[in-house]
Amino acid sequence: LEIRPRLITKTLIPENQESPIHFINGQKISPLQYFYRRNHFPYPSLLPKPYYLTIRGLVQQPFDFNLEQLKSMPSKSFVVPLECAGNQRAKFSPKVFGEQWKDGAISQAEWKGVPLKDILLKAGLQKDAKEVVFVGADYGMRTDMVGVFYYARSLPLEKALHPDTIIAYECNGQPIPFKHGFPLRLIVPGWYAMTSVKWLQQIIVIDEPFTGPFQAIDYVYYPYKNSDADKKPVTTINVNSLIQFPLDYSVHNTGTIVIEGIAWTGNGVITKVEISIDNGETWNDANLDSQPDQPYAWTQWSFVWEAYEKGEYIILAKATDSNGQTQPFEPMWNRKGYGYNAIQEIRVKIE
Amino acid sequence: LEIRPRLITKTLIPENQESPIHFINGQKISPLQYFYRRNHFPYPSLLPKPYYLTIRGLVQQPFDFNLEQLKSMPSKSFVVPLECAGNQRAKFSPKVFGEQWKDGAISQAEWKGVPLKDILLKAGLQKDAKEVVFVGADYGMRTDMVGVFYYARSLPLEKALHPDTIIAYECNGQPIPFKHGFPLRLIVPGWYAMTSVKWLQQIIVIDEPFTGPFQAIDYVYYPYKNSDADKKPVTTINVNSLIQFPLDYSVHNTGTIVIEGIAWTGNGVITKVEISIDNGETWNDANLDSQPDQPYAWTQWSFVWEAYEKGEYIILAKATDSNGQTQPFEPMWNRKGYGYNAIQEIRVKIE
Repeated sequence: LEIRPRLITKTLIPENQESPIHFINGQKISPLQYFYRRNHFPYPSLLPKPYYLTIRGLVQQPFDFNLEQLKSMPSKSFVVPLECAGNQRAKFSPKVFGEQWKDGAISQAEWKGVPLKDILLKAGLQKDAKEVVFVGADYGMRTDMVGVFYYARSLPLEKALHPDTIIAYECNGQPIPFKHGFPLRLIVPGWYAMTSVKWLQQIIVIDEPFTGPFQAIDYVYYPYKNSDADKKPVTTINVNSLIQFPLDYSVHNTGTIVIEGIAWTGNGVITKVEISIDNGETWNDANLDSQPDQPYAWTQWSFVWEAYEKGEYIILAKATDSNGQTQPFEPMWNRKGYGYNAIQEIRVKIE
Repeated sequence: LEIRPRLITKTLIPENQESPIHFINGQKISPLQYFYRRNHFPYPSLLPKPYYLTIRGLVQQPFDFNLEQLKSMPSKSFVVPLECAGNQRAKFSPKVFGEQWKDGAISQAEWKGVPLKDILLKAGLQKDAKEVVFVGADYGMRTDMVGVFYYARSLPLEKALHPDTIIAYECNGQPIPFKHGFPLRLIVPGWYAMTSVKWLQQIIVIDEPFTGPFQAIDYVYYPYKNSDADKKPVTTINVNSLIQFPLDYSVHNTGTIVIEGIAWTGNGVITKVEISIDNGETWNDANLDSQPDQPYAWTQWSFVWEAYEKGEYIILAKATDSNGQTQPFEPMWNRKGYGYNAIQEIRVKIE
């Protein structure tokens, strides 16, 4: 009798489904059928055969790479959590418009590919190169502008040349699943996943800031509801943690409860996860199950709670990273709802 | 490329999954794979073969009905929405403990079976009979009491003898799916679905109020957080409605938007659904797609909105039934979170 969790549907066209992350705890790699799906457009229906990755713009030598060429180059692999910049958007108060992601717009896989740096250097950068634009094969319309747009994002040269930014062709030792970007996906460890362009078809080197709508309108922190003042681009993943078990507003018998979850950051590694079972009055260190050989991977954590006293409890989890960043009590509200990383609060009843 | 909605996992043991009701709009019958699943215990693993429905207690003649006997009796069919009493529990404020159902703990099917009345009369009721207890094959432990309990509920004699209360053996023209109560399920049209006992094995006629925990502790409205004063049993489904489209906090282009959803009640039929696109200042009647031959079925409704003016809108839906009951602006808060039926409010942005 099959009993299994399911992806959590947010919208069907385009397909946006959340990972049932509370029901797949204790995993270093997210089962692919539970990997969250986030699309801006319908799936691209026609991928060119043979598939070329073209590199154009301010390069010494425009290049077309086919898949065999890419696979013959030196490769790197990383276990990387991909997190949608809008993960946990539904928790902002005041609430914001957009896909109402709760906790599951994050999943983790092992990605293998060619360092982007090697590809850029093979083509050769012209001296006024400033940004690198990545164009996917997916396209469609927007509600706020007239026209048809490809999904495209840019990286500043420094991040494009980072040795761990890769053009991936494998996910968990297999070709990338179509819904996750087959055959090529840019993977930018440490940045929110809008940057990790799926169905990557074209790389264009430019000498000025890229102004495509997914760069200049979306994925920008706007601190004010009615003004664009003080806006800044969404880039690095904020330090964050999630309580996977127990569930919010769940009821339990007295006894030992193993509180568990994950913590992650885009900047360094997780050094500490603290748990409070008394709404922040006292804190205890959780046990961390780090992966020292996988500097980008999320850290699984657990805390054994002897829940022998009946009552209602407010449980908090707070992660700190090696750059000294700690989750705040209040999220940084922004109009489009990106980068939520406030300390998570759940309530449980012991009876 | 398969893109489909999914059940929404609440808990796996027991299996509690919500229907993705916002993504299966426009349907008179809920696709069975999207029928919500609500269990108190693990699925019963061993159903007796052959399967007998026993009737005991204050009857003239104890009876064991096998399936063939039941199927040879006169039958009735109804399209019935089954709604968990805790549907929309997550919307109560202050929030309450328990399964955090949102909108999808309701689904509709056609159920066919033998009127319970005919079975009771065949066995013959003794004159002091007051309630009829229904015992399912599912059992297990509770967090609040010591011991192992079968899932069991009772009906007052009047409701048990209502001609539309049936012992169902078919769902949508097929044997009942195991997860929904195969081979026999009590179906009580108009009452919340905790009463429609699955895997029905035993009927017991008694002369006093049934005190099983699913009758006397759960499925009781407790108006106060810290007192049991003024409690009353959960029975009839409250008049209610749901906006299935558009989604809460969704963003749309200017143009025509067909707002649509369902409305239902346990007492009479839906006579009116009113829609407001200005947070309740003005109301308009929705078009109703009633099923006059199906007095219990939900009513599909729609309202054409010419959304040509950009801005943020608060859309409300309010249903009224033939007993003059209308959805309230505020839900009747109760400690265990049953019977939520406040007017639904969604926000959309037109840009």
